[in-house]
Amino acid sequence: MKEIKIGLLGFGTIGAGVVKLLASNSALLTEKTGTRISLKSIVDLDITTDRGVNTEGIILTRTAEEVLTDPEISVIIELIGGYEPARSFVLKAISHGKHVVTANKALLAVHGEEIYAAAKANGVEVLFEAAVGGGIPVLSAIKGNLAGNRFSTVLGIVNGTCNYILTRMTHDGADFSEVLKSAQELGYAEADPTFDIEGVDTAHKLCLLLSLCFGTKIDLKDIYSEGITSISSEDVDFAKSFGYRIKLLAIGKMDDGQIEARVHPTMIPIDYPLADVHGVFNAIRLTGDFIGPVMFYGRGAGMDATASAVVGDVIDLSRSMGAGISRRCAPLGYLDEKVSTLTIKPMGEIVSKYYIRFQALDRPGVLARIAGALGASGISIASMLQSARSASEVVPIVIMTHEARESDMRRALAEIDTYEVIRGKSTFIRIEDNLE
Amino acid sequence: MKEIKIGLLGFGTIGAGVVKLLASNSALLTEKTGTRISLKSIVDLDITTDRGVNTEGIILTRTAEEVLTDPEISVIIELIGGYEPARSFVLKAISHGKHVVTANKALLAVHGEEIYAAAKANGVEVLFEAAVGGGIPVLSAIKGNLAGNRFSTVLGIVNGTCNYILTRMTHDGADFSEVLKSAQELGYAEADPTFDIEGVDTAHKLCLLLSLCFGTKIDLKDIYSEGITSISSEDVDFAKSFGYRIKLLAIGKMDDGQIEARVHPTMIPIDYPLADVHGVFNAIRLTGDFIGPVMFYGRGAGMDATASAVVGDVIDLSRSMGAGISRRCAPLGYLDEKVSTLTIKPMGEIVSKYYIRFQALDRPGVLARIAGALGASGISIASMLQSARSASEVVPIVIMTHEARESDMRRALAEIDTYEVIRGKSTFIRIEDNLE
Repeated sequence: MKEIKIGLLGFGTIGAGVVKLLASNSALLTEKTGTRISLKSIVDLDITTDRGVNTEGIILTRTAEEVLTDPEISVIIELIGGYEPARSFVLKAISHGKHVVTANKALLAVHGEEIYAAAKANGVEVLFEAAVGGGIPVLSAIKGNLAGNRFSTVLGIVNGTCNYILTRMTHDGADFSEVLKSAQELGYAEADPTFDIEGVDTAHKLCLLLSLCFGTKIDLKDIYSEGITSISSEDVDFAKSFGYRIKLLAIGKMDDGQIEARVHPTMIPIDYPLADVHGVFNAIRLTGDFIGPVMFYGRGAGMDATASAVVGDVIDLSRSMGAGISRRCAPLGYLDEKVSTLTIKPMGEIVSKYYIRFQALDRPGVLARIAGALGASGISIASMLQSARSASEVVPIVIMTHEARESDMRRALAEIDTYEVIRGKSTFIRIEDNLE
Repeated sequence: MKEIKIGLLGFGTIGAGVVKLLASNSALLTEKTGTRISLKSIVDLDITTDRGVNTEGIILTRTAEEVLTDPEISVIIELIGGYEPARSFVLKAISHGKHVVTANKALLAVHGEEIYAAAKANGVEVLFEAAVGGGIPVLSAIKGNLAGNRFSTVLGIVNGTCNYILTRMTHDGADFSEVLKSAQELGYAEADPTFDIEGVDTAHKLCLLLSLCFGTKIDLKDIYSEGITSISSEDVDFAKSFGYRIKLLAIGKMDDGQIEARVHPTMIPIDYPLADVHGVFNAIRLTGDFIGPVMFYGRGAGMDATASAVVGDVIDLSRSMGAGISRRCAPLGYLDEKVSTLTIKPMGEIVSKYYIRFQALDRPGVLARIAGALGASGISIASMLQSARSASEVVPIVIMTHEARESDMRRALAEIDTYEVIRGKSTFIRIEDNLE
């Protein structure tokens, strides 16, 4: 029987999941691929800690070099994470003719172009289903069966930490910092949660989704990214009263040859399937010119679900290698030479509906001034809510706008914030409620 | 540039969608596959009616023979539907070394084994993403990136006609026959809707899902199938009051080496994502040992969405052919010789919770007798509802049970139905509310 030998870089949680899956479903993999898929070597700095999985017969080593150059190994699974040494290891593996499977969105979002070029030059594949949405097979679908479509929109809830926090804030009425703390205790948020809660991780994933959907290089710096740290329980409650939920969305849209690429808290109608994606679950919703809207939902993280995606990529490679070919599909699903460099629309030019919350003294004429300033910037009001009255204290005024240009909206807010009846900086949340 | 020539059998709605997609996204397909995918011939009995798509340069013919044996054509798309002549045409195409892409669930559910064997013997592939869930790329996912999983459960809302009817009954409180009539007027139901509303179409699709999930032959006759014709608006209302919605589900479960394979109206909790699949949309929810639960949602029918799936299969073939191989994956994702013949569990042996509705005269002691009969069959009651009192008239009594064996439940009902205080045949609906 044909045999494919694998080298695994990084023996953390997901690495242990991969070891477990390859062992427990070994016979199944052979029934499906006709090849024996065996893990030959694992590279990690820590080769002594027990990960609770059987490593009998597997070489554990601290030295990546011997694995990256091992002529018996044809597939390298990279689960180290981060930029270095992951980048150097991946490039070395490729230069030695090895296929690469990785879950490393940060690496590909920043160094993808270099890695894809190396893969092309060496005739190998780079697969990364596990990098977006954990176990959800959305990238394979975009590259594969949905590839006949021109996509117009991709929306994703792709960060479990943020979605867990927002879900708890919505269901329990709790405050951000309170929920973050309990998420950290439960292991749903890192000790340093910056990457997740500031939207950086989501931006990395959006970068990959955009590359696949639109066949384009994306400069990560061009993706507008705003986290969930400024969402208050007050905003969550107001959202509810208008029939919305707040989600951190990765948003990509094709607009006249330009791409919208943005990550920010977003209000979506309560009856959208995306609004029902709770806790650490992820979902990605695409719209294609033929498929229409299509949504994928599942576990966005975790040892087992992510291992499913990693091994799924290995199965894909095994079938091609079993049939005698080394490279069947380029990393982005487009021929490498057809990958374009589309422009990302400046954030000021996007058009959206907005939820705006002002903190104002409850004086006669305040609303008229706010409405006047919005109107002067061409922003029309869809609805308005002033929830409590209090002559001496600051009250929230909430305004839902019709579609407006972001730059107009920001200019109006900057002006309004100078009024002496306005206290503190006004906040706003973009609304997506016009999906096909 | 490499070129792949296609023959299309059947120029109905979906056929027209395929012609439209291949024309409008032709350049995109080449950017993604490196091959020119061109439609050489279309076979249909009617070659004169204008389908609103451009057929310039395409041969239209009434004679399948010349297309099935055309040495230039390497892929046949079969969209005739039904058993014959689809079966003969597909077998002939295969015997001439052509790959087959089809949307024909009825054909594969009944003649799959013969067709897959022929494909193996001739070294070609048979792909059928469009046969289940319209455009939703669920079969590719099961065969592809999720293939590392052992699946335990598959649940599907895969018939748009039934889902449209049940959705309307739920939202409008309308009766089955009334909604069916308007569905027919809107084109959401056929003039003869039997195949859809009796669950036959859903059973065909379940058959394919089971084959792929479990790598097994399935005898369509062994799939229990019950349609939605006996669902009353009363049942829909009671479901609501208990926090459930009624959906026609295709249910497959792996249970100790035996398979549960059943199609029937099912109550699912209102907060399950499947409960939010409305109208003609479809969704399929799988549970795998590593991925956990994963759900796919999208358009289950229609010209464009189904064409997306058909062309997606053609893209898959093009990539393999472009790389120089003719057969990369067997039809079910398992090596042909590894496809097993698992036993389907007899319906009497399944275990489920039940909703039961009795029509009873409102006399003292009725409930005690019903409860006694259920108890004697080992069925325990979870909750009970008797909505209206009326000394002379028949009132509904609704009982929700804990888990019980189907045979026990049916035996108890048969006995209860003999009581003279019971009027008419009691009805029951199975409940799925214990999903991981």
